[in-house]
Amino acid sequence: MTDSTRPAVNKVVLAYSGGLDTSVILKWLQQEYQCEVVTFTADLGQGEELEPARAKAELMGVKPEHIFIDDLREEFVKDYVFPMMRANALYEGLYLLGTSIARPLIAKRQIEIAKMVGADAVSHGATGKGNDQVRFELGYYALAPDIRVIAPWREWDLTSRSRLIEFAESHQIPVSKDKRGEAPFSTDANLLHTSSEGKVLEDPWDEVPDYVYSRTVNPEDAPDQPETITIDFERGDGVALNGVAMSPATLLAALNDLGRKHGIGRLDLVENRFVGMKSRGMYETPGGTIYALAHRGIEQITLDRGAAHLKDELAPRYAELVYNGFWFSPEREMLQAAVNYSQEKVTGTVRLKLYKGSCNVTGRKSPHSLYSEKVVTFEDDQGAYDQRDAAGFIKLNALRLRLLGRRDR
Amino acid sequence: MTDSTRPAVNKVVLAYSGGLDTSVILKWLQQEYQCEVVTFTADLGQGEELEPARAKAELMGVKPEHIFIDDLREEFVKDYVFPMMRANALYEGLYLLGTSIARPLIAKRQIEIAKMVGADAVSHGATGKGNDQVRFELGYYALAPDIRVIAPWREWDLTSRSRLIEFAESHQIPVSKDKRGEAPFSTDANLLHTSSEGKVLEDPWDEVPDYVYSRTVNPEDAPDQPETITIDFERGDGVALNGVAMSPATLLAALNDLGRKHGIGRLDLVENRFVGMKSRGMYETPGGTIYALAHRGIEQITLDRGAAHLKDELAPRYAELVYNGFWFSPEREMLQAAVNYSQEKVTGTVRLKLYKGSCNVTGRKSPHSLYSEKVVTFEDDQGAYDQRDAAGFIKLNALRLRLLGRRDR
Amino acid sequence: MTDSTRPAVNKVVLAYSGGLDTSVILKWLQQEYQCEVVTFTADLGQGEELEPARAKAELMGVKPEHIFIDDLREEFVKDYVFPMMRANALYEGLYLLGTSIARPLIAKRQIEIAKMVGADAVSHGATGKGNDQVRFELGYYALAPDIRVIAPWREWDLTSRSRLIEFAESHQIPVSKDKRGEAPFSTDANLLHTSSEGKVLEDPWDEVPDYVYSRTVNPEDAPDQPETITIDFERGDGVALNGVAMSPATLLAALNDLGRKHGIGRLDLVENRFVGMKSRGMYETPGGTIYALAHRGIEQITLDRGAAHLKDELAPRYAELVYNGFWFSPEREMLQAAVNYSQEKVTGTVRLKLYKGSCNVTGRKSPHSLYSEKVVTFEDDQGAYDQRDAAGFIKLNALRLRLLGRRDR
Amino acid sequence: MTDSTRPAVNKVVLAYSGGLDTSVILKWLQQEYQCEVVTFTADLGQGEELEPARAKAELMGVKPEHIFIDDLREEFVKDYVFPMMRANALYEGLYLLGTSIARPLIAKRQIEIAKMVGADAVSHGATGKGNDQVRFELGYYALAPDIRVIAPWREWDLTSRSRLIEFAESHQIPVSKDKRGEAPFSTDANLLHTSSEGKVLEDPWDEVPDYVYSRTVNPEDAPDQPETITIDFERGDGVALNGVAMSPATLLAALNDLGRKHGIGRLDLVENRFVGMKSRGMYETPGGTIYALAHRGIEQITLDRGAAHLKDELAPRYAELVYNGFWFSPEREMLQAAVNYSQEKVTGTVRLKLYKGSCNVTGRKSPHSLYSEKVVTFEDDQGAYDQRDAAGFIKLNALRLRLLGRRDR
Repeated sequence: MTDSTRPAVNKVVLAYSGGLDTSVILKWLQQEYQCEVVTFTADLGQGEELEPARAKAELMGVKPEHIFIDDLREEFVKDYVFPMMRANALYEGLYLLGTSIARPLIAKRQIEIAKMVGADAVSHGATGKGNDQVRFELGYYALAPDIRVIAPWREWDLTSRSRLIEFAESHQIPVSKDKRGEAPFSTDANLLHTSSEGKVLEDPWDEVPDYVYSRTVNPEDAPDQPETITIDFERGDGVALNGVAMSPATLLAALNDLGRKHGIGRLDLVENRFVGMKSRGMYETPGGTIYALAHRGIEQITLDRGAAHLKDELAPRYAELVYNGFWFSPEREMLQAAVNYSQEKVTGTVRLKLYKGSCNVTGRKSPHSLYSEKVVTFEDDQGAYDQRDAAGFIKLNALRLRLLGRRDR
Repeated sequence: MTDSTRPAVNKVVLAYSGGLDTSVILKWLQQEYQCEVVTFTADLGQGEELEPARAKAELMGVKPEHIFIDDLREEFVKDYVFPMMRANALYEGLYLLGTSIARPLIAKRQIEIAKMVGADAVSHGATGKGNDQVRFELGYYALAPDIRVIAPWREWDLTSRSRLIEFAESHQIPVSKDKRGEAPFSTDANLLHTSSEGKVLEDPWDEVPDYVYSRTVNPEDAPDQPETITIDFERGDGVALNGVAMSPATLLAALNDLGRKHGIGRLDLVENRFVGMKSRGMYETPGGTIYALAHRGIEQITLDRGAAHLKDELAPRYAELVYNGFWFSPEREMLQAAVNYSQEKVTGTVRLKLYKGSCNVTGRKSPHSLYSEKVVTFEDDQGAYDQRDAAGFIKLNALRLRLLGRRDR
Repeated sequence: MTDSTRPAVNKVVLAYSGGLDTSVILKWLQQEYQCEVVTFTADLGQGEELEPARAKAELMGVKPEHIFIDDLREEFVKDYVFPMMRANALYEGLYLLGTSIARPLIAKRQIEIAKMVGADAVSHGATGKGNDQVRFELGYYALAPDIRVIAPWREWDLTSRSRLIEFAESHQIPVSKDKRGEAPFSTDANLLHTSSEGKVLEDPWDEVPDYVYSRTVNPEDAPDQPETITIDFERGDGVALNGVAMSPATLLAALNDLGRKHGIGRLDLVENRFVGMKSRGMYETPGGTIYALAHRGIEQITLDRGAAHLKDELAPRYAELVYNGFWFSPEREMLQAAVNYSQEKVTGTVRLKLYKGSCNVTGRKSPHSLYSEKVVTFEDDQGAYDQRDAAGFIKLNALRLRLLGRRDR
Repeated sequence: MTDSTRPAVNKVVLAYSGGLDTSVILKWLQQEYQCEVVTFTADLGQGEELEPARAKAELMGVKPEHIFIDDLREEFVKDYVFPMMRANALYEGLYLLGTSIARPLIAKRQIEIAKMVGADAVSHGATGKGNDQVRFELGYYALAPDIRVIAPWREWDLTSRSRLIEFAESHQIPVSKDKRGEAPFSTDANLLHTSSEGKVLEDPWDEVPDYVYSRTVNPEDAPDQPETITIDFERGDGVALNGVAMSPATLLAALNDLGRKHGIGRLDLVENRFVGMKSRGMYETPGGTIYALAHRGIEQITLDRGAAHLKDELAPRYAELVYNGFWFSPEREMLQAAVNYSQEKVTGTVRLKLYKGSCNVTGRKSPHSLYSEKVVTFEDDQGAYDQRDAAGFIKLNALRLRLLGRRDR
């Protein structure tokens, strides 16, 4: 059954979730490529037990020293989510990029393991229609230009669910009951978000059924009392919730709890995939939604206008790069350098109110505030601002328009 | 008392609200400039009776034929609000530009009246610290490059509230009781929004007191049942609510009612003024908030990715231009030309859910939809998309990163 | 020999130059696809006889009514070169996009012919490493989404020059003597430019040999006397040379003659291809170089600063889109709408001096000039500009920097 | 004669050239402000003797310890010119910003001196119509937010040349003969460039008279033989000429000599000033023109496409900021951070040919080259690039255009 045209592979590191699809891939790799499979399972806060993945891998003959299960939660939030949040990145104006931002970290760790165990290939379970294949593979190639990439979904003939399950059964891969029927949609989860797409979501006119949501309560079921919280920032990153210092992942997890409780961060979106099609997704980003808004809040008083507006103009590009999988690219890193430069004084406290699906900044303060009550006041400002300056300011801003008006109007 | 250094003015058109400030200005202009004053009062949907302005103007000696009261609501929404909404403009990521977008229309109408009545000057009641003076005057100068502009707040010595009231009283200008004490904040209103700033809002850490809001109920007091609505768009502009065709201003007014009822569109913001300072404002944009989200919703299925992403990159610049008062500028008009070009097929229906301060798109459909269920489906797509194409797509997107990786990593 | 896995093709329109490569393709298509081949040969001013292409096509059995030879020179300059010049597009800061801009027109005409003759496929002779395949095919797909595209260089096994010639000889395709040896480089030519790449140019440190240039004299051999010319523009497009009205293609051809004579428009460039690699090219754009500079010259006095700077910011993106083959894309068309809007008053005359490889604007005038000697003069300007306005202008521009300085410095 | 409304000034640091204008200012400051004047004269490579400035200042009563004459040439090139060149900044597509880039350094040094000598004010000799006043003063305010700025040209009544000379003569300020008549134009010079504007240049249709040029020979008088040179770069900055290591200022000076000899770097421009008017200037940037082209040359092989294109999109904004005087602004510094990040591997050698006014890159090489002959070759690449990948690449890039085409065409 081995395809003799396939190039020889010695050892492959598979991004392995322990689920049905990647278990089938594991077996298929062993069989088709006759190669040793190394599994890598990342804890990114998806909220699933990971040890069963170890057992399953062992069952399928993966050597114990070839089973990697890593807790990457702190690295994920500190080195991926927070830098992206500094940029106020929103894809297509609305989406907080929860799936996109996790892929480069998985790719990076997979390559590290490949180097460690001397693997010559890596593999993943993303399909050929989606963005994730691009994100994984651009990461692989950027970090290990000569690595061999195996993307089973683009290669094999298991193109329907039933053939996949048939393969699993004929290879003694356990199939849980709920996988036998067609799942009504497909999901991805990590500490930042849960996404769902496909199946019952495929008609963008149909409302997302309530059972699709898993990370947030329905706003209608959220508490009737608003809850007020504070987040402290230091140099652009969150460091405390309600005055209690927390590590990045701990902070995001705590915000997730708050967001879940108040039904915050649901998004029904039709977006443009990098591969050229539109897709409809449902996203839940409870903590991230609160965090993103809070970050803007602290920037409002600590960032100069020039910096703020430049950031606003660069943000769509930054978001596009992350979405398209170009995390490990010089241009994303250049934008990050600019963004990071701006965050030096983005330090202070933001107060927010959470209530039945909505989240609003209600106050912000900072030792580095650029807001000057003395200058802005309607009262006597004692010379802090000379209103007559405005006359000249307007006159010279108007000069080109006047010359134009004389010519054209 | 006339300042002999002031250049002679024959006739001045004043943007006149009928309130205390512009009434004092009216009198002051007559006195200081010894000139004829023409008043112009615009109905932009601010929700105030305008006829009292006529009576007051007459009382101060303005000739009946020099009193202009115009209903500009349809023009405001059709030619200013809607074109701006087509651009998805948000100032500093959050603000829907409710005040900024009204100023150019007032300026334009003032200049038209000036030409009609042969006036050589125009005047407004905006202070020397704010953005509005800039917006008014850039409009004046663009449309009538040689007009004379009188900005009393930058000229006179009535620099405190008590001196203003003293002047009013000594000139028989009626002062309503509530103007005698210090107003706790200052407001601006039109069909798109109400803004408040100053006084009790001046400390950006203090929560906005509930009595500052006037256009929306507190979300906590909003109905316990969500309400679902639809908005129809044609070529980028809203044309119907719940299937009922409406004119632009009627549609926005109806959305305002819905937004008010559900507590939608409140924004507490610290923003950067064009004149160089930060200020804290509270905005209520009930209908506009719903409309803006709906517009993004219909674009999601009708705009190509290239168009959508270009729009996203241009939007911050567009918003900055509107905010800074450059509505009548070649660069805003160029951006508008690009944006308008993109809206040709932005036609269809969006469904939204309104609930206790939040507003979410729950469905969108269009006869010009670019969303293809056939292409995106997880099921067998019968050749609509060949997953193997993705391999080459990724390989060539990765090529430069691989060359880079070989050099650097 | 026919590959049975190839989908059936009935009739294919081939972009046919009459040269060796496309003649081999013609034959190969007939043989491999067993289909009728329609040839299309465009006169884009490449300066070659086109009738021989007809004879060759007939010789290979193409029906006379299936041989299309069209003079597209005027359309090329008027609808492609000029609009691009309005945008001041320069790829990577230097390249005038001579090859890129011709491809969409060829693609468009090919599709028109395909529709006319009822063809179900199109084909071209671009290789799998270059940009041209992308430009052709994006054009095809945009204009005829369901057309079948055959790119022989990506399909066949004629992967070396000798195999190509072998195929030609075994199929009675005439091979001119100079094609038998390895050509030292490959070229493309049209009315805007000639490009050369490959072979002797492949090491970017080696100087381009003089024999590679064909469109311009070596500047050292150019006349010792400078020549002064004028170009008249109307609404952004050139309309006359030295006061003599000319059609677009005639004007560009006349400028080419001038550029050739004075050695103008040579460019040695290492550029980034869309497919991910760097390549080294040599370009000669004699007339286009003069024209582009002249266009900037007339814009200098007729474009407002706001319009000019927005154009400068959009130009790299526009150039990238054209280079990458996205001429028929909404985003290029949106940018064009913005650019075109700006050109309404770009009318007037530019004077240039041509001398031994260099070209400089030495004067410009316009009935719509925005340059005001009265305002700018060092002499007494009689109140056209009040220098005291500058104080307020600076003060308010400085305000945010002062607030920042108080905090940070 | 002292204006009693002027605020008291104790000590002022004047940017002093030793010329007529700033000598008059020196005296006027002493007289009008009754304050101590400190003079600061910078050697930025303008090519003038600076010691006469000392003598003149002493003559007018400036204390020896209050006379500062600093050689800032190395700092100028290293910390201002080179960082700007890394960004490939060109104002309005053509101008290398020679005047703009010198102003922030002068401002910075003036503020340093003010702090050293305890001055409470600074002053400069720029007029109220130009950009330089803005550049100086934005620099002052950014670095010393509470400094007092005296701009005599915006204050005094010496508004004509004859009144200025009259003032000079009545105060024993020596007036050189050539200053008595009207100078035919005004100039600024430093190591990067010489600019001229005004008077005989005021009509943008008139050709710049030959006597206006001072830094370059007329190309027609340049050597008949081309000269070939090499420049070495390290991390984005020039470090050697023809293999000889040089400091930044030495390198630029040597390039100036070469540029002068070959007539390189003349530019006749109508530009848009920040204060709102158009002006016509003549610039000579001999060494800078060569350097800028060489920098692009080395970037061509060492910068990745993503980095290069992002730089191209940011460059117009960067140039605008420098031109407008916002060197010391967060947004310029953010852009610089992005640019600097990109320059890490911009190391190598560029070869250029100089000939009668033109300068062209003829070769470039680098130990960090990203150019891969193996990938790009027309010959057999032995698998470095799989041409079939291009099919998928094009197919997915085309997908959205096809969906669009199906809808619209």
